[in-house]
Amino acid sequence: MNQPNDCVFCKILSGELEVSMVYQDDRCSAFMDIQPVNPGHTLVVPNRHASNLAELDEEEGAQLFRVAQPIAAALRKSGVKCEGVNFFLADGEAAGQEVFHVHLHILPRYVGDGFGLRFGPHYANKPGRQELNETADRIRNALQLK
Amino acid sequence: MNQPNDCVFCKILSGELEVSMVYQDDRCSAFMDIQPVNPGHTLVVPNRHASNLAELDEEEGAQLFRVAQPIAAALRKSGVKCEGVNFFLADGEAAGQEVFHVHLHILPRYVGDGFGLRFGPHYANKPGRQELNETADRIRNALQLK
Repeated sequence: MNQPNDCVFCKILSGELEVSMVYQDDRCSAFMDIQPVNPGHTLVVPNRHASNLAELDEEEGAQLFRVAQPIAAALRKSGVKCEGVNFFLADGEAAGQEVFHVHLHILPRYVGDGFGLRFGPHYANKPGRQELNETADRIRNALQLK
Repeated sequence: MNQPNDCVFCKILSGELEVSMVYQDDRCSAFMDIQPVNPGHTLVVPNRHASNLAELDEEEGAQLFRVAQPIAAALRKSGVKCEGVNFFLADGEAAGQEVFHVHLHILPRYVGDGFGLRFGPHYANKPGRQELNETADRIRNALQLK
């Protein structure tokens, strides 16, 4: 699954599998999801195989967002039903990642589309400021920026 | 709601409201969500008020992702329970946006956390290639890249 040879997105990018392409540049490609949450559901992927965020170069990541933003704008004026847009990315199986080639979902949304988030029990708890500060400290201490 | 004077994130960034800050640079800031989906739920926002993606500069958007990526890595080694990570962004009320200052959610995930996506009826339909190609054409034709 982690090898480019078995990667469905690498096969799409090499021309081995059929695709409905929206956009391509040197770093990334955008194409239609074959099982759309709503019509117009687009994926942006790095051209180079990266199984997960840890394997993605900083500028590849930045480019995903650079491309996703005008695609979101395009969806809103494309005639596809689109009153709002979600970006969604899953990194790791526990986060719902199914294809292990990084992909940013661009989801056209409209009122009553039935799509949304479901929340676990933690969402009901509002932690106090001390707990939030301690969590922020732990993340900040683990943060390594270039 | 669209005015910086009424914007809760602008108030956080100006020091008017309390915050548990994780990271700041010239373009963006990352801090703890006060109602976390899971402990460690972090928001990355542009420092400059932008109500939505349409008001966000390209490089501000790219920077959100540049910062989100190392924060995702940090979450995984921070000691916060984190087996995977989701990025989520809502643009527009129909997409679930509640604070009208662009924010990218960074959500630590673990098996059994109860968080996830719920799907509407469209998700059951797999459109044919012709329909996907037509949709891609519409989006591509509406796309304006700099």
